[in-house]
Amino acid sequence: MSKYWNNRTKNIIPYVPGEQPKDRKFIKLNTNENPYPPSPKVIEAVKNAANADLRLYPDPDCTMFREAAALRYGVKPEQVFAGNGSDEILAFAFGAFFESTAADGTGEKEILFPDITYSFYPVYADLWGIPFRKIPLLDDFSIKGADYRIPCGGVIFPNPNAPTGKPVPLADILSLAGYLAEQDRVLIVDEAYAAFGTETAVPYITKHPNLLVVHTLSKWAGLAGLRFGFAVGSEELIEGLCRIKDSFNSYTVDRLALAGAAAAIEDSAYYDGINKKVMQTRDRTSDELRSLGFNVIPSAANFLFVKAPNTDGFVFFTVLREKGILTRHFNKERISDYLRVSIGTDEEMDIFLEECRKISNK
Amino acid sequence: MSKYWNNRTKNIIPYVPGEQPKDRKFIKLNTNENPYPPSPKVIEAVKNAANADLRLYPDPDCTMFREAAALRYGVKPEQVFAGNGSDEILAFAFGAFFESTAADGTGEKEILFPDITYSFYPVYADLWGIPFRKIPLLDDFSIKGADYRIPCGGVIFPNPNAPTGKPVPLADILSLAGYLAEQDRVLIVDEAYAAFGTETAVPYITKHPNLLVVHTLSKWAGLAGLRFGFAVGSEELIEGLCRIKDSFNSYTVDRLALAGAAAAIEDSAYYDGINKKVMQTRDRTSDELRSLGFNVIPSAANFLFVKAPNTDGFVFFTVLREKGILTRHFNKERISDYLRVSIGTDEEMDIFLEECRKISNK
Repeated sequence: MSKYWNNRTKNIIPYVPGEQPKDRKFIKLNTNENPYPPSPKVIEAVKNAANADLRLYPDPDCTMFREAAALRYGVKPEQVFAGNGSDEILAFAFGAFFESTAADGTGEKEILFPDITYSFYPVYADLWGIPFRKIPLLDDFSIKGADYRIPCGGVIFPNPNAPTGKPVPLADILSLAGYLAEQDRVLIVDEAYAAFGTETAVPYITKHPNLLVVHTLSKWAGLAGLRFGFAVGSEELIEGLCRIKDSFNSYTVDRLALAGAAAAIEDSAYYDGINKKVMQTRDRTSDELRSLGFNVIPSAANFLFVKAPNTDGFVFFTVLREKGILTRHFNKERISDYLRVSIGTDEEMDIFLEECRKISNK
Repeated sequence: MSKYWNNRTKNIIPYVPGEQPKDRKFIKLNTNENPYPPSPKVIEAVKNAANADLRLYPDPDCTMFREAAALRYGVKPEQVFAGNGSDEILAFAFGAFFESTAADGTGEKEILFPDITYSFYPVYADLWGIPFRKIPLLDDFSIKGADYRIPCGGVIFPNPNAPTGKPVPLADILSLAGYLAEQDRVLIVDEAYAAFGTETAVPYITKHPNLLVVHTLSKWAGLAGLRFGFAVGSEELIEGLCRIKDSFNSYTVDRLALAGAAAAIEDSAYYDGINKKVMQTRDRTSDELRSLGFNVIPSAANFLFVKAPNTDGFVFFTVLREKGILTRHFNKERISDYLRVSIGTDEEMDIFLEECRKISNK
């Protein structure tokens, strides 16, 4: 603690991302990266952008990407916002749409998100001084849409939820968006993992001008190292994000990332192939784990949320780590018995399954 | 104005960066980019980083860069913070060290910056709800260090100042840092342009633990399109920046930018060469403008702040723009007669000087 820190810096508890090992070789199933490399067209586009033009500022509006994304998703470029990863976009969205506790001390309505969800949400709320309330998942780890139909400052959740991988029915989302619109509140749906089998809400952003859908290239596009995310929503929501971005950092996306991202969004053929493979590997892994007596939450993401038979979650994590397999354990109420396991290649999952077999004594 | 925006979004006036023309070819003297390309070693490093590893998250701590910068500047890696451009770092620094108006409505001490300075500072202050006061420059556009030795919430200014290009004596900065330390307040010195002939405060960060020095690769390293900045300060200030960064976006620097930045910081030989050339061109341009009757503020940056004889600043700007030369005009009190003109190549400055000759009728 330093006397030069302000109250925000002193009090905030930063988000802790999954370990990024530098030295030893691990089977890395801990940060939901894609096991397959990005499209060769992305690599080529990035290499082509590595030229003397790096001396010039990039396009602050990311026009090239917004036009490509608009074409792919059947929306307008003005309905697309591009940023330095979806985390940055979420930080901007909290700063743009959710109200902070007022400077005059009057209370503001709490925003709502699940008790078990992406653990960055409470951090963003604290960063901006936004009051929040956690809504418990049902016992089967479902998000119940109706639980969020209460007066509030706005709602955010991932679909599918993380770290459970469970999707929320689209009908619940649209119904909730309608309810929140009556209160002039925003619903943010964080679709980081939607490409792995969850129905997207993107086609409904015109009907629901208070619905912001946030995507990332880190997962389906195999580009966690490129730092690129985007959001789709009504022009007024996108303009709100731009106002905060332009009050923070005019140019958040560099020329290399912009070129790579535009190439990725255009290469559906390549990505459909690798992500179909990820989903097949997920379903096979899931089946095998169940046959070994593991509890596996039905996943519509590129990871599984898994509980080992008769084994504490931290022990499960530690045994795997000693065998060179990194997974993610959350030492939190309700989920401390579970591990989140990213889907790797078939070879990686076979090694993981072999260790699980030993743990289950089968 | 949207009913879905919060009060921050409704009230803030975003920063407006200089024009980045997409279509027509301009002589671009409006955003202080380096007229020379980045080091070939940077291009090579970026191309090498464009590989399958892009599927993996980057190192959130930017260790490779911090170690290289520590070596170059004679500090520890723990005294270096890396970010997505110096604008992002400034946004984090405002959020980390300057206190917002308290939620209970009690006032906080105002931070101080010059009336004529980087126009992003009041935007950052408004973003975080930080009260501020502008201290007038002297009539000759100097920053007078003693004017900032008053009870306050902290101080920030660029050295050399922008858009004037005038440096602040290092003795004034160190004396001010000492004064502010007695109040537990932070002094941020924004050295975006220091490489063009202004003495850096970096060697004094150990003696002054409340002094944060912010740098960018956009200017001296010819890498505005790479988005990379860094700050040097005491371990406690750097840790404060990390706490805010990790509450905002865990990975702000992508693998490509990280590789390029580390290569840039190591290639002093190349950069000393091109930046010596920029300074020579600046001094020659300055001399010629004065001989034509223009008022030129003595510059220690890669731009000039210039007033044409008997010509309004906006007219000067417009005449140049019609001739295909982009410069920056600020329609603000005290400086509306001036243009900020980035230093281009000798050939570009000759064309600029030719137009100035016509304007001066000489």
